[in-house]
Order: sequence, then C-alpha cells, then structure tokens
Amino acid sequence: MSERKGLKNRGYEAEDVEDRRSAVEEFTGAKMTTVSKFGFEPPCASKNIENMIGATQIPLGFAGPVHIDGGDAKGDFLVPLATTEGALVASISRGMSVITKSGGAKARIFGDAMTRAPVLRTKGLEHCIEVMRWVDENEGLLKKAVAGTTSHGSLVRIEKFPDGRNLYLRLSFSTGDAMGMNMATIASEAVCREIEEATGATMVSVSGNMCSDKKPAAINLIEGRGKTAVAEALIPKDLVESSLHATAASIAETNIRKNLVGSIMSGTLGANAHAANMAAALYIATGQDPAQVIGCSMTLTTCEDLDGDLYICVRVPAIEVGTVGGGTRLPCQREALEMIGCLGDGKARRLAEIVAVTILAGELSTLAAQAAGQLGSAHAALGR
Amino acid sequence: MSERKGLKNRGYEAEDVEDRRSAVEEFTGAKMTTVSKFGFEPPCASKNIENMIGATQIPLGFAGPVHIDGGDAKGDFLVPLATTEGALVASISRGMSVITKSGGAKARIFGDAMTRAPVLRTKGLEHCIEVMRWVDENEGLLKKAVAGTTSHGSLVRIEKFPDGRNLYLRLSFSTGDAMGMNMATIASEAVCREIEEATGATMVSVSGNMCSDKKPAAINLIEGRGKTAVAEALIPKDLVESSLHATAASIAETNIRKNLVGSIMSGTLGANAHAANMAAALYIATGQDPAQVIGCSMTLTTCEDLDGDLYICVRVPAIEVGTVGGGTRLPCQREALEMIGCLGDGKARRLAEIVAVTILAGELSTLAAQAAGQLGSAHAALGR
Amino acid sequence: MSERKGLKNRGYEAEDVEDRRSAVEEFTGAKMTTVSKFGFEPPCASKNIENMIGATQIPLGFAGPVHIDGGDAKGDFLVPLATTEGALVASISRGMSVITKSGGAKARIFGDAMTRAPVLRTKGLEHCIEVMRWVDENEGLLKKAVAGTTSHGSLVRIEKFPDGRNLYLRLSFSTGDAMGMNMATIASEAVCREIEEATGATMVSVSGNMCSDKKPAAINLIEGRGKTAVAEALIPKDLVESSLHATAASIAETNIRKNLVGSIMSGTLGANAHAANMAAALYIATGQDPAQVIGCSMTLTTCEDLDGDLYICVRVPAIEVGTVGGGTRLPCQREALEMIGCLGDGKARRLAEIVAVTILAGELSTLAAQAAGQLGSAHAALGR
Amino acid sequence: MSERKGLKNRGYEAEDVEDRRSAVEEFTGAKMTTVSKFGFEPPCASKNIENMIGATQIPLGFAGPVHIDGGDAKGDFLVPLATTEGALVASISRGMSVITKSGGAKARIFGDAMTRAPVLRTKGLEHCIEVMRWVDENEGLLKKAVAGTTSHGSLVRIEKFPDGRNLYLRLSFSTGDAMGMNMATIASEAVCREIEEATGATMVSVSGNMCSDKKPAAINLIEGRGKTAVAEALIPKDLVESSLHATAASIAETNIRKNLVGSIMSGTLGANAHAANMAAALYIATGQDPAQVIGCSMTLTTCEDLDGDLYICVRVPAIEVGTVGGGTRLPCQREALEMIGCLGDGKARRLAEIVAVTILAGELSTLAAQAAGQLGSAHAALGR
Repeated sequence: MSERKGLKNRGYEAEDVEDRRSAVEEFTGAKMTTVSKFGFEPPCASKNIENMIGATQIPLGFAGPVHIDGGDAKGDFLVPLATTEGALVASISRGMSVITKSGGAKARIFGDAMTRAPVLRTKGLEHCIEVMRWVDENEGLLKKAVAGTTSHGSLVRIEKFPDGRNLYLRLSFSTGDAMGMNMATIASEAVCREIEEATGATMVSVSGNMCSDKKPAAINLIEGRGKTAVAEALIPKDLVESSLHATAASIAETNIRKNLVGSIMSGTLGANAHAANMAAALYIATGQDPAQVIGCSMTLTTCEDLDGDLYICVRVPAIEVGTVGGGTRLPCQREALEMIGCLGDGKARRLAEIVAVTILAGELSTLAAQAAGQLGSAHAALGR
Repeated sequence: MSERKGLKNRGYEAEDVEDRRSAVEEFTGAKMTTVSKFGFEPPCASKNIENMIGATQIPLGFAGPVHIDGGDAKGDFLVPLATTEGALVASISRGMSVITKSGGAKARIFGDAMTRAPVLRTKGLEHCIEVMRWVDENEGLLKKAVAGTTSHGSLVRIEKFPDGRNLYLRLSFSTGDAMGMNMATIASEAVCREIEEATGATMVSVSGNMCSDKKPAAINLIEGRGKTAVAEALIPKDLVESSLHATAASIAETNIRKNLVGSIMSGTLGANAHAANMAAALYIATGQDPAQVIGCSMTLTTCEDLDGDLYICVRVPAIEVGTVGGGTRLPCQREALEMIGCLGDGKARRLAEIVAVTILAGELSTLAAQAAGQLGSAHAALGR
Repeated sequence: MSERKGLKNRGYEAEDVEDRRSAVEEFTGAKMTTVSKFGFEPPCASKNIENMIGATQIPLGFAGPVHIDGGDAKGDFLVPLATTEGALVASISRGMSVITKSGGAKARIFGDAMTRAPVLRTKGLEHCIEVMRWVDENEGLLKKAVAGTTSHGSLVRIEKFPDGRNLYLRLSFSTGDAMGMNMATIASEAVCREIEEATGATMVSVSGNMCSDKKPAAINLIEGRGKTAVAEALIPKDLVESSLHATAASIAETNIRKNLVGSIMSGTLGANAHAANMAAALYIATGQDPAQVIGCSMTLTTCEDLDGDLYICVRVPAIEVGTVGGGTRLPCQREALEMIGCLGDGKARRLAEIVAVTILAGELSTLAAQAAGQLGSAHAALGR
Repeated sequence: MSERKGLKNRGYEAEDVEDRRSAVEEFTGAKMTTVSKFGFEPPCASKNIENMIGATQIPLGFAGPVHIDGGDAKGDFLVPLATTEGALVASISRGMSVITKSGGAKARIFGDAMTRAPVLRTKGLEHCIEVMRWVDENEGLLKKAVAGTTSHGSLVRIEKFPDGRNLYLRLSFSTGDAMGMNMATIASEAVCREIEEATGATMVSVSGNMCSDKKPAAINLIEGRGKTAVAEALIPKDLVESSLHATAASIAETNIRKNLVGSIMSGTLGANAHAANMAAALYIATGQDPAQVIGCSMTLTTCEDLDGDLYICVRVPAIEVGTVGGGTRLPCQREALEMIGCLGDGKARRLAEIVAVTILAGELSTLAAQAAGQLGSAHAALGR
C-alpha cells in the first residue's frame, strides 16, 4: 500500500482491501479482524463486489448423502449448506437420510428460461397495438439483436401485456448454464432499442416488474422463472414410523392444516413450511444470488397418505441458478459446486434438481417434526 | 484428530471439522481447500450449524457513509454488505451519497413484534368457539406460561382465526433485541400446551403458516412482522440532475410504470425494484437469517416529483432482525454489526432502520439508472 | 306524460320511466316491451337508480328447506335465489337436502363491521407520525364526529397504515342492520374533516383501497369485512353414498386437489368451488349489492373424511349485507327477505348465516358431483 | 293447476310456478305478490332456473350515450344498467358524457378464449411426465374429441402444470359468441376421457381451479379469461375542469394514492375504484353471469396528466360474456342486448368492449368525484 486513499479507494488488490478496511475501522471504531482472514485473493472477487474490505464467513456444513434419481442429477450427493441457523443442517440431513433409505428422490425440470420484462411507453392504445404488431412481425430481427449481445443465450419467447400507454414485453431467454439475469438485461435492452427505433415507443425501464426478479410475483409462481422443478419421494410406512416417529396420516394432516389451509388463510403465494431456508443455505454455499430464494419461497408442498406410506412432493416454481458466472467464480463457492458435481458448463439443470431435492428433504423433516410436536424442542436442543 | 469418524462425526472442534471435510473430499472427489481457511474457531459456531466442514466466504464491502436521522439510528453510517453481485455495492453507495448530500434519510419503526401462529384442531365450530372463549378468558394465564419459557420475551397479542375444525392463533411476542423466532416457537408451544389441556383441542403444528415465516404472505405485508419501517429522502432538483443524471419526473414515472403498475400486473406482493438485494447483502453481513429477506421483498417504493425535487420513500413491512443470538454470535458478523453500532442489547430497532435506509438507497439508485436507461450498461461495466 | 323530455328526463314517476323508455327505443331501435312489465311503482326505486326505463326480471327460485342451527338463524329455511344459470338452484337444493337429512348446518358470525379507509396526504414521515399521534389522542372526538353523521352507526376501530406521504386509516364501523357502505363513507368524511383541520393533512380520497370495497383484497380475506361467517355440516357415511353417490374420501380428495392445491397454484385469494354463485343468486334475490359477491368469492372450503362421514366447512370472510336500506327497500327484494325472516331491524346477522349455509350447500353439491365426474352431464341435462 | 304438488313440484309451466309460490308462502308465511308480476312466460326460463316461483325485478336504467371507437363496437351507445345502488347510473352517465364530449373512448380486445382446467391424478412424477408427453403427441386427437362435443367451439391451447401426483391442464377454447363455460366443461370432460383411457390417469375434477371460474385468481389477471379488453379516453383540460371540477393532476394523484398504492398495500389483485359495480349492473341487465364480475374486479385503472389533459385507461383482464345462450335467452335480457346491438351471433366482442368502456366511465367519474372530495355528498343526495 503505497499511499492511503481510504474510503475513496476503488482498487481491487489486497492492499486496497487493507487500505479500505483500515479506513472503515477508523471511521467506525470497529475492529475488523476476522473478516480480514479469508482464503482467497481479493482480485478474484473484482467482478463480484466493490469497496471490498474482507469476507463474511458463513459456517459451511453438509447434508446427505441423498440419493437422487433425476433427469440430470443421478447418484448420491453430499449437499453443501451455508447457514447460521442451528438445527437446519441436522433437519435436512434427517430428511435426506429417510429419503435415501426409501430408495431416493425423483426430480425433474419443467421449463428453463430466464425472463426480463421491459416496459415501453406508447402514445396510447392504437400505437400500443402497432408496436405489438411490429414485434410479432419482426421476431427474427429481435432474435438477431439478442444474438448480437451474447453467444450463450437466445430469445425464445415474447409475451405481450398491453395496457394503453404501457406495453410490457415478457422476454424469455435460454441462457445456457448461467443464471442469466445480466445477459437477459443486456439482451432486453438491445430488443428495446430496435423497437424504439422502429416504432417510436420509449423504453421506460428495462425491467417493468413483470419479469419478475427477486419479488414475490404470481407470474413466476404460474409461469415459472429460471427452472421449475418437481421432486418427490415415497417413504414406506415402517420408515415413517421408525425414523420420523410419525405416521403418513399425521404428516399429511399437518401439511393440509398448516401448509395448504394456513397459506390460503394468510394470503400466501405458494404453500410450504420453510423452502426458503433450504434454498438460502444452498444458494449461499454455491455462489447463487441469495435474493433469488424468493422464487423458491413460493414452493408448493403436498403430502399424501398412500395406505400408510407417505408420498411427499415439492413443486419449486422458480429456481434461478447458474453454474457459471456470478458468484460461482469464487473459490469457496466453486468447491461447494464441485462437491455436487455442478461446476461449469452443462450443470445448471443438475443443480436445480438438487435444490428441489434439498427442499424436499427439509420439508419432510420439518413436517414430520411438527406432526410429532417436536419443532420447539429440536430448536431448544440444537438451536440458537 | 485421534480417530477418523468421517461423515458420521458429530463433533464441533476444529479437528472434527477437518475430519468431516476430509471425508467429504473423499466421498465427492472435490478439493475443499479454500473453505478450510477461515478466521474463527469452529466451536463458536456450534449453535449455528451441524456437520461443519469449513466456511463459505462472501466478499464483504461497504456502502456509505449515509446520513440517517432515524428514531434510533442517528448519524453517519458505513453499511456492511456481503454480496457476490457485481455493481450492487456501487449502486447502493451512489444512492447513499446522493441521500447524504441531500441532508440524509429519515427512518422510523412502526410495530415491533415477532409472530408465531399455531394451528389447533378442534372438534368443530362449537368447540372452536369454546376454545376461543377460553383463550379470551385466560390471557393472563397464557402470558404467564410464556413468561415461564423466556425472560426476554412476552406475549403481547393474540389474534384468532377460526375455521371450523381449524383454529389459527396468531401470537405476537415482544422479543427484545433477538429476532425471536426460536423464542416465539417455544413460547407458542407453551401456550398450546395450556390450551390443549384445558380445552381438548390439539396443536397440529406450532406453525400454522399464518405466522408467516419465510414465505411471501399478505398477512405480513398488511400486519407486519418483526419491525415495519418507513424511510424517506428528499433529493433537491439539482442533485437529481447532476448526480443521478435524471429528473424527478422521469424517476417518478419509472416508479409508477415499473414498480406500481408492473407489480400489479404481475400479481406481486409489494412493489419495488430490488429491495431483497439490499436486505440480503446486509442480512448476510450481519448474521441475520437470509431466508427472511422475503419480508423485505414485499417493500413498497413510492416516488413523487415535488416541483422538481424528488421525494422517495420505502415501506418495508417485515424486517425480522436481531442484534443478539443466532448468527450475530459469529465473529465476522459481530464485526459487521460493530461497524454500524448495532451489536448487542438495545440495538435491533437501529438495525432495522439501517435496513430500511439501505433499501431506500438501492431503490433510488436503480430507479434513477433505469430512468436513464443505464442498468444494462452499468452491469456490463462492473458486473458479472 | 305531459311533455316529452326523453333521454334528458330526470323524473322518477311512471310517466317519466315511459318517456325515457320511448326515447331509448327511438335512439336504439330496440323494442323494450318486457322490461316495461314489472310489478312495482317506479317512485319506490327513486333511491335505487337514475334514468330508470323498466326492470330487469331475473327468474327467482328457491332452494331448501335447509335446517340451520346458527347463532341467529335457527330453523328451516327456504332460500330465495335469483339466477339465470340452469342447474344452480337444483344443485344447491340437493346440497341442502343432504345437509338437512344430516341434522342441519351450524353457522356462526365472527366479526361484524363495515370498513372505509381514507388515504391522507401528509408532508412526509414526521408529519405522518404527528397525524397518527393526533388520531390516537383524539379518538373520542372522532367518534363524536361520526355520531354527528348517523344515529345507526358508530366508529369502533381505527387501524393506521403509514407510508411516508401517504397515511391510510382503516376505519371500522358498527352499522346496525344496514350493509353500511354509504354510512361509513359519510362518517369517514367527517373523520377526515376533523383530521384535516387539526393536522393539515389532506384527504386525497375517502376510499384509499384499503377498505376494500368490491375488489379482491387480501386485507378482507384476513381481517374480514362486513360479517365473517363459518358454516359446517357433518354428513353421515350412508347419506354421502346414497344421496351424493360418492364417498367422504373422494370428496375430501377432490377438495384438496381442486380447491386447495389448485387455488394455490393459480394464485387465488381463498379456495372454493363456486361460492360466488350462491352469493350472487341470494344477493340479487334479496336486494344486496351484487358487486359485493367478491367478498364471498374468497371463501375457504375444507372437507374431511371422519371415518367415512364427511365433514364440510366454509369460511366466508366478507359478507357485506344488510336487511334495511339499499336494495332491500324494493318490493320483490322485501318479499324474498320475508321468505327467510330477514326483513328489517335485527336481521342482518341471520341473513349472513343463511348466506354462509347456502354457500356450504352449493359447495357440497358441486364437490360431490365433481368427485363423481358428473358436473358436465348435470349441466348437459338441466343447463344452458 | 290441477293438483297441488307444492315444494316438490318440478314443472316449468306458469301453473307450476304458481303452485310452488303458494307452497312457499304457506311454508314461510311471506306474501310473494310482486315477484309474481313479471313480463315473460315461465317456460322460456326452463333452461335458466329450477324451482321457479317468480321473478326478481331489478330497476333498469341507462347511461349514455357514449361514443365508442372500438375494434367491434363503433358508434354511440345507450348502455343498459340494472342496479339498486343509487347514484351509480348517474355517476356512469356523467363519465360517459365527459368521454363523449372528448371524442369518445377507444377500446380493443386482446385474447379471447374460455378456459377449463381439469386436475388429473397420476401415479407420480414419471407417470405425470408420460401423461404430459401423451398429451403433446395427441393434440390432434384431443381437438377431435372436443369437436365431437360442440360445433361452436374448438380447443385452441393446452397449458400443462405438473405437480407430482397432480397434473393440471389449462384448456383454452374458442367458444364463438357464447360465454362458453358449459361448452368448455363438456369439452374438457371429453378431453379427459381420452387421456384417462390412454394413460391411466384419473380426472379428479373437471375443474381443478386453475381455470379459474368466479374466483379471484392471479392466473386470470395475468393470462386473461374470456376476453381481455383495454379502453382509454383523453379528456381535454377544459373539460376536466368544467365538467369534472377537478384537474388532470389531482385525478392522476388520486389514482396513484388510492388505486395503485392502496391496492398494493391491501394485497389486492388488480387496482381500480369500483370496476365490479359497472360490470355487475351491465351483466345483470344483459343476462350475463353476475358471479363472473370477479373477472372484472381485477381491472387495472391508470391515469396520466398529459400537460393538463387527462389520459385514463382501464385494462379489464377477464370479461366472460356471451351474446347467445345462458341468460341471454330471457326476454328482458334480450331487450337490453338489443339496446346496444349485442344480441346474437357475432356480437360478443362488441359487448366486451362496451363492458370495458362502461367501466372506464365509472372509474373516471368516481376518481374525479373523489379527487374533488365529493363521493360522500353525492351519495347523500342521490343515494340509498
């Protein structure tokens, strides 16, 4: 560190990090010791953060092994989970253990596209219709415009939502193994530039909130965003009793009264016990965007008592994950992705299936515990 | 490490962590090097995780200083943000800079209680009414039962939602400076034990999803959960133009077409640009529960053009945070809390106000950028 | 008719009606014969409509008798239903027959208040807090202001929802046996005049959409509006089989997959088969506001298989009805109210219970029919 | 009336109606005089009701003339409105007058299909996928099955929503000028019979609530049901002031604070003042299904101040109307349809545009009145 620049330092080197941290300590009076002790070189985070002063360290555990029979994820997985909530990893592990003893979970992906929905201002209804017509007639040109912005993605669908002087276009992109939000944003801007030029409409925002990113939107619940996944397991009667200390009937009842009816009565999008917990722990461990746990928070969990066996299923409407780019560039996150064979190209769908199965395991364990009236005491023993 | 126990190891010492990590490497074939290099002693995470194998390291930056004139937060703050999303810290910083030049943000807390909503099974409508009556007549006894489970919290409100054989009780607790979910769970179980004994109703789940924790529920949007906060700023005309390269009118228009109308058209709870982003980065840095960003994802953002000046306001319905317990026990997280004077007793409301102001800054910056058509290019320059 | 005034005629006499109808016929070329043949004197509708040209005649049928064991409705009722949807009355009747053979339905009212929620513009957060404080400190004065506008209603609750420069006050009124919307509007204006004068806040709209009238709002689902009612019945196994040609298990399954899970997946407020149908037919017959069927459309229907017997329950969150004022002044509507002993003072709660039981009967019949795969064919036989 | 059968009488002749009414009077003690005086022959209602005892007479008025420049509705219309809510017709008329003086309203239809969404039970995820695949591969066969049930409708789209053991198929039908719900139900059953036979899946309900009929469902808000219509008008500055006693700025502000922000804060689907009012009055007058006003209750109303002129627009997501079949067979209702040139084939889209414009007029008038703080007093003068 040649010269002190302090809070205004914009560099990405280790010495810049030190410089800023010292300045922060000086400004705030806090001692920032632990955050300075981390295991990677600061420049490798240059695309992930600005004003870096260290690293927050989240305890990393694992759950599993869990056996998965998915479309892309096949085999036994140890799932990395970064969390500070005591009892969460233990609970997921319990669910995975029961699932695996039952022969494993099935999982499949339905729908796989990232969306961006610009809002255009038109001159009114007639102009709005003209713009829509132009879009319909020039889809090829718009796809070409997208192709000019990225070699990894392509425009696969255009939905049009007219409202007089507002026209929302929900653009769906294939984004390969990237989560794709940034790619979709840039591509959408290119699409809008073409529309603006040809029609005189004005892009007011590249995101008109019909995308919808990081917000609890029914449109994502219904149409999906990123990957929609379903995972299921069938737990034999004896395992339900011996391992979960409950019955299929009691768990199905808990699911109905709590997840289904309780969610309806509280005006909730989706219906689950704590899907966001599993998503958050796995997203943080693997470098996904933690604000996108919202897509998973709308999970639908269903349970059935099949002659004493327990059928459990989760439908996760919006798993917005990637195995390249973003936080997956960072060393810890890469190691976590490697644990589940999800680093790099061709792995995003596998990762999404693992997300769904991890949610399945957490739902199973919590529902069973609540069915048995154990939630509070489990927390008391292990928890915060 | 005396003896290898591997994946089954349940210990909390450094050697147990090593043992498990080796076992994980062996099982998965992944090299887990970076996650092993962290700055705290494993046993201090014993209440935060099970099966620990290391620590996920998230780049930590800061935004600010931002000037806050809050009910509890007063002064200039450097806000810690842990994220892997390039451009996010820069964007929030820009918003904070403009806010501070404008004289700072105001912030206040409305409502402050943690909720748990058990679902009880009754014998039917008449029994349901009997149970409700018993609850009304025995509120004192129930408060005493709660007092027997915790010295930090108290039962402050009981809402009753009857539905024939289902009775949902939404219990609100004062939980001091803890986020309080665990405390509320244990206390709710104590409440239910009393009710079960006296009335013959059965607690089917201590959480009947009218709480609602980590799910996008209208009940939290409307009634709040944890702390409801409002933050606002007034940006003078010249600053809007010189610092944000936009006008109050264009930003207000963007907010209407995107955040208000777009959110309505997509069936969204709340209406904002990316409130969850700011919440996630601050929650992770300070040891909050990242799945609880969902409460912030329902933020309402409004903008007004006041004769050329820009008024911007965020209403964050459910900020579920604490400054004691949970993830705030960990070293990095404590240091981040210290940065903003939010470690320990008497600080939770201050933290909630800082959450709201950080969201305000991020909303301001993004809306301004979108108004100016800059979002994509900002990402292109700084981003992933 | 002395002198032709035609479309501009604003009179309420029979001759004015004739005059206008002639003018309408002339203007449109339509022959308006049937609408001119109705059974009441036009002036008695002078508070119900303007520009009257006749009467729309809706076929009126009845369902029942249904036995009700309610808090206010007790005995056997023939329920008047005005509809043009073939098969609807038959279906409700079938449900009522089964319910009655089972010993009748139980029904109770929970909560009984009409709401209006003005939105006030304040100068900002601090002013907003001042206004809220003034409201808290002057509740007595506000109640007095309300008392000055009506002798039938009173202000019973004020909920405050601050958002910076917007302050929403959800005012709850006891409105006797009137539906009370008009009373609540006038009273709310009086409340706002006081607030405006004392605090400098400005009432932007007497209805700020947190009321919420005639819109599908989660706040009504959760907090109720008008009367919240629950009705239930227990159908013995043999009746389920002999009269409904189904089993409790199959009906419960249909309810779960259709009403609960299907409603969650489609982002629906509430969960029912067709509650609005029953509400509409009964509302129209009895002079209620048909646009307020929306409050009933958020009904929650649950079914349980209790050892072969069928338990069925409906929770109707917002029954906004009256037995005085509005459409209940009209002759046909009065006759329908008389059929169920619901005309005049002291009858509104009874009416609400009958609404709930009618919905219960319709839900039962439709669920049973769908369980048996009969819906389409029933329509084919009786229907349009 | 040869022989008294009373309450059990199932006939459709005038004498059967008399017989039943007498029996009802006897049973209930009510005098049913007015309902017996109606202007049509009972047998013509034989497909519209069972157990008929008379007719409910709703005052019928008109609003307008309103000038419409629609895709299908072109010219000046007097709109029939059946209501018992004083001031409603006057308010709509005022809106129409202003719109017409401004040059009229524009209106267009986007999307036109009736939906039914059966829920099928599968054996689990793999079977679910098999069924989906079979459906994809046999769309032609399914269309043929539909063609076998109706000559007026056709299957135009199949959306598949898998959830493990539940598979929801949202089937969209072109239904000509019928509202089409019954046609869609019968056709959907035919579709399901084919699927059941070929795949072993079981139709649990022909309506799995993703249709969604008469319920406030986000899926209808987003994807539309029946017809989605947009209507707009531009009111010149001087007319806003002279006729509405307000300014474009004040009306736009009212719309934002009330309809947009207030609806977001109350968790409402859609955002309007009272769209359901206009829909209900027009639906009842023209023989539409009044429970389907729910589709209109999710209307989005937007206003803009364009240099002093007022731009107002409504987006009505789900107008489920017909000009043949159902209630349109009845005499009064036919006369009302004739008033607007909407009786019979080829008129349904025109009717939908008139619905949208009527909503537009009502929204305009109410927003203007609220902007001017007049709502309460208008009701006091004219109202109930």
